[in-house]
Amino acid sequence: MISMSGKPLAAIVSAGLSKFGRREGLYGRELFLEAAGEAFDRCPNLDPRRDIKGVFVGHMGESYEHQGHTGPTISDWLGLTPTQGFRFESACASSSAALRCAVMAIASGLLDIVLVGGVEKMTHRTTPEVTEYLAMASDFPFEQWHGLTFPGLFALMATAHMHKYGTTEEQLAMVAVKNHKNASMNPKAQFQKVITLEDALKSRVIAWPLKLFDCSPITDGASCAILVKPELAKKFTDTPIYIIGSGGATDRLGVYARDDITSLLSAKVASQEAYKMAGVEPKDIDVAEVHDCFTIAEVILYEDLGFCPKGYGGKFIEEGQTHIGGKIPVNTSGGLKAKGHPVGATGVAQVYEIYLQLTGQAGPRQVSGAEIALTHNMGGSGASAFVHIYRRGD
Amino acid sequence: MISMSGKPLAAIVSAGLSKFGRREGLYGRELFLEAAGEAFDRCPNLDPRRDIKGVFVGHMGESYEHQGHTGPTISDWLGLTPTQGFRFESACASSSAALRCAVMAIASGLLDIVLVGGVEKMTHRTTPEVTEYLAMASDFPFEQWHGLTFPGLFALMATAHMHKYGTTEEQLAMVAVKNHKNASMNPKAQFQKVITLEDALKSRVIAWPLKLFDCSPITDGASCAILVKPELAKKFTDTPIYIIGSGGATDRLGVYARDDITSLLSAKVASQEAYKMAGVEPKDIDVAEVHDCFTIAEVILYEDLGFCPKGYGGKFIEEGQTHIGGKIPVNTSGGLKAKGHPVGATGVAQVYEIYLQLTGQAGPRQVSGAEIALTHNMGGSGASAFVHIYRRGD
Repeated sequence: MISMSGKPLAAIVSAGLSKFGRREGLYGRELFLEAAGEAFDRCPNLDPRRDIKGVFVGHMGESYEHQGHTGPTISDWLGLTPTQGFRFESACASSSAALRCAVMAIASGLLDIVLVGGVEKMTHRTTPEVTEYLAMASDFPFEQWHGLTFPGLFALMATAHMHKYGTTEEQLAMVAVKNHKNASMNPKAQFQKVITLEDALKSRVIAWPLKLFDCSPITDGASCAILVKPELAKKFTDTPIYIIGSGGATDRLGVYARDDITSLLSAKVASQEAYKMAGVEPKDIDVAEVHDCFTIAEVILYEDLGFCPKGYGGKFIEEGQTHIGGKIPVNTSGGLKAKGHPVGATGVAQVYEIYLQLTGQAGPRQVSGAEIALTHNMGGSGASAFVHIYRRGD
Repeated sequence: MISMSGKPLAAIVSAGLSKFGRREGLYGRELFLEAAGEAFDRCPNLDPRRDIKGVFVGHMGESYEHQGHTGPTISDWLGLTPTQGFRFESACASSSAALRCAVMAIASGLLDIVLVGGVEKMTHRTTPEVTEYLAMASDFPFEQWHGLTFPGLFALMATAHMHKYGTTEEQLAMVAVKNHKNASMNPKAQFQKVITLEDALKSRVIAWPLKLFDCSPITDGASCAILVKPELAKKFTDTPIYIIGSGGATDRLGVYARDDITSLLSAKVASQEAYKMAGVEPKDIDVAEVHDCFTIAEVILYEDLGFCPKGYGGKFIEEGQTHIGGKIPVNTSGGLKAKGHPVGATGVAQVYEIYLQLTGQAGPRQVSGAEIALTHNMGGSGASAFVHIYRRGD
């Protein structure tokens, strides 16, 4: 691994996001057009057919729409044939895997302008179907086969964290309250409703201690960003965002096999790589989107990404440190929890929020003066994770 | 796109392949260990845990084993946690998509040593199940929904090619005879049996004019190669193989949408890119592995890869030009047709054969003096394709 020390790896010159939620009567490919259309509209100097050299798409499950081969599907539906297309699957981190490989493609010099994005169409399936398809990201012989699903796996982490560090159900609920509040200021979010601590605590138990409001929803959506080599950025925008750090890591696939389930190894390793490459520290991050598939995940990630000391995550949300206006605002978009979680789209949807924040377009949820940002996106119960660090252009 | 003019992009320093065929009682991840074990054994100077910076895996279908998230799965089962892992899906070209992104990762300078491979475990499923899972690579609303499966799609191409160019059923059968003969010299091939032209022509019709022996089989298998940046190659082997060209392209997803179904646009565009980058022409290729999912595909590819003029593919096999000892031996391994086609593994299985050929380890099927080689691997009915060109090291 070479240290780049903050040298830009790639520039983001545009981004787009479909409305998240229940999107009836549309195929995933059509949702992708909605996201890409916004990205193209924001970037009038881009001629997609002439300029885009590759399409990097995160898409978790071919079962939802009986449709794989998503790279050429999206290239085709964007009118870009014969431009090469790739599908990446890393469970709920699929489009961050796409982003990381797109960054490497740009850094290699082989491709100078690429489209990266993600898509998932989920809500037309029944909840048992979605649960089954999502579970394919966990270990079949050691987890799925025995009936463990993701709420159960994260409940194991939650009880362990409560036991070891004294984290409380109220603290978990506070993550949900914050993220719903942020989503109420995001017109593209699935849920626009502010909730109270009592609403969250009184919601029905899914897998104790996780209740309905501790869990991210089932969502349809797509996300898109345009990446170019840094030298080309100003051709396309006056306000580029530079990717200055990128890290990827794995953990044991099965949660049973891990030494410590109060921590997410992949988040630690991937973020250390990204911080080192970017030449920044956790205290330098002005705004972050992190993978809050369940509230306990956000609490653990405060710790493993270095925003607070180990074991302090519950107190960190209780103190309001991750609210807008706090020490480090987290999930200003509403997060997976309230913006919604169309699994393949989520990674680049985080990028979209960072793009808005660092270009000052986040409206009522704007973090003032944000210059350095981070995204963390994980697959499954953390068997894969990708961390990227961004800097506002001059 | 920058022209590299034959400059090595990456070096292959080792490769491994599982036995192909019906592998009962094993998970795909276990087949992968078999392939990786061979690659590690061939490369004693490699310390996998210390050296490998990323795992790039092609895997087409999560449905076969109810298991996605293949990047971390393989990293875990190779004992490489927390090394980053990626899954690529581009239908039957999945591991060539992995290879292309691995090449970009090496060329970017971000990763210096990576493992690339592919895996599919298929034979424990019923034929209708496999047919359904494979069909997810075709267009759901426009093809699958109407009952078109891959034998039908390639039969459409075959009848069009016969009509336009006079290609015959006998010529198609000659591809099968050649590839079975080659496979009889490959101990890892699924089929070890030489067949006659009569055997092929008398086999039962699957989708006219394609008969059983015109179709590749359902196979279990895994493939693996170790890629390093060119400067490191000699640390690991005296006989490196350099990747000097890499191309990727798409076609319209649905066959109905294409201008000409006697040609594969993605193969043409991807190979032109690879030839240009490598600074070689079709006449320079000494040995090639091309995607013979059906015999008609190999005939069309002779033309679209530039091995013979358009429309001449049928005569080209009839003249024996692609036999070992001919002008350009194609599918010396036995190809998908007879070596077998574990879809996610196929791309890097082609690389394995090229590795053997260019290092003089192909035994009775060795092409003498082979120096420059090509692989072509396509997804579905050609909606995606990747072409790589290789040069024997000095």
